[in-house]
Amino acid sequence: MSIVLYELAGADSHRPFSPHCWKARMALKHKGLVFDTVSVAFTEVPTIENGATRAVPLIRDGGTLVSDSFRIAEYLEEAYPDLPSLFGGQGGRDLTRFVESWTQLTLHPAITGLAITDIHAMLAEPDQVYFRADRERKLGRSLEAVASGREDRIEPLLKSMEPLRSLLRGRPFIGGNAPLFADYIVFGALQWLRITCPLAVVPTEDPVALWFGRCLDLFDGHGRTVSAASA
Amino acid sequence: MSIVLYELAGADSHRPFSPHCWKARMALKHKGLVFDTVSVAFTEVPTIENGATRAVPLIRDGGTLVSDSFRIAEYLEEAYPDLPSLFGGQGGRDLTRFVESWTQLTLHPAITGLAITDIHAMLAEPDQVYFRADRERKLGRSLEAVASGREDRIEPLLKSMEPLRSLLRGRPFIGGNAPLFADYIVFGALQWLRITCPLAVVPTEDPVALWFGRCLDLFDGHGRTVSAASA
Repeated sequence: MSIVLYELAGADSHRPFSPHCWKARMALKHKGLVFDTVSVAFTEVPTIENGATRAVPLIRDGGTLVSDSFRIAEYLEEAYPDLPSLFGGQGGRDLTRFVESWTQLTLHPAITGLAITDIHAMLAEPDQVYFRADRERKLGRSLEAVASGREDRIEPLLKSMEPLRSLLRGRPFIGGNAPLFADYIVFGALQWLRITCPLAVVPTEDPVALWFGRCLDLFDGHGRTVSAASA
Repeated sequence: MSIVLYELAGADSHRPFSPHCWKARMALKHKGLVFDTVSVAFTEVPTIENGATRAVPLIRDGGTLVSDSFRIAEYLEEAYPDLPSLFGGQGGRDLTRFVESWTQLTLHPAITGLAITDIHAMLAEPDQVYFRADRERKLGRSLEAVASGREDRIEPLLKSMEPLRSLLRGRPFIGGNAPLFADYIVFGALQWLRITCPLAVVPTEDPVALWFGRCLDLFDGHGRTVSAASA
């Protein structure tokens, strides 16, 4: 029985966009595991697997349920130690948390500020109601206010990527010569941006864009099976 | 024959302050290796070991010379594989480069902007001449202009530490339950700030300050053998 990955979807179930679900997808691909995906709308999450989780991704592997993208990667590493490593050892696993923290506190808020109204527009109607209420409560402003003047925030976002850019001038992947789960953490953020937001954000010759292209090429171009948002 | 560490010093050779030299010191301590230090002023660096390096730290281990703090850590890891690991495996070694990139592009420029006139004041006269000319050429401004309004830049520096702070809310060290070379990279930056600059920068209850205190406590309080700059 193959692994099942529950992942977030909008009105079009063929356009999964969640950064966290992309991290889990890429981790499964990295391990070379066969998996089926089940699309779940925001408002359906509490109903899956008898209420096993409040957020996706969630995977079921035989009798085991695991949620949270990092915990999924850790589970896969432990359950399938002979398949390609996602961490490259305990030190790698520990330091991947720094890459996660940097990504979630640097890239995620900026991408939210660029893409939030686009994401809203991709959702089915009941999810739009949930998403607007939930995000406006958390952010303390309307979605439109969050997105207002977003073009002006592209330059600061690009500047905030400088540690990543500098690193990628000297190596093909964050993990070195080959990708690790750390790559998929950052990839998930930029894939989320690519699929939801039609703004041209990262210049094509930027080392970050070149690395992102290499990530899109992995696993027979798996990341390209969902097209970029069109303007 | 014990290892020799050449490290940068100002007028007072008992107050080594270079972030890169502190990284090398802590790496040697982590491995539990015995070493002697040789203090070198900026203008003396080209004369040591027959012109072996343009910058310190430089270590001599028997017949082997290694410069650059990261290369020193890699050398120690390879030469002393049975002593405590600095990286926790190849993945850790690869991802340590991300921590280095983040530190050098986020913390170092900010600390330069806070401490540059203090550093200048710590140097002996010939080194002051070199340091002012070199740094003013690189930065395109006088040292005093770089330091001007520095108090106003403490808040942005603290904000830029948020990925580190968030990580350290959940674990004692960047490396997890115990420090890795990644910890010493960030430690080196904050130790440089502590020894050179009398400004109170990181609030004492900040998770970053608590972690920094844990780093200062390591190896019988080795980091505390040099006192903080006094106002």
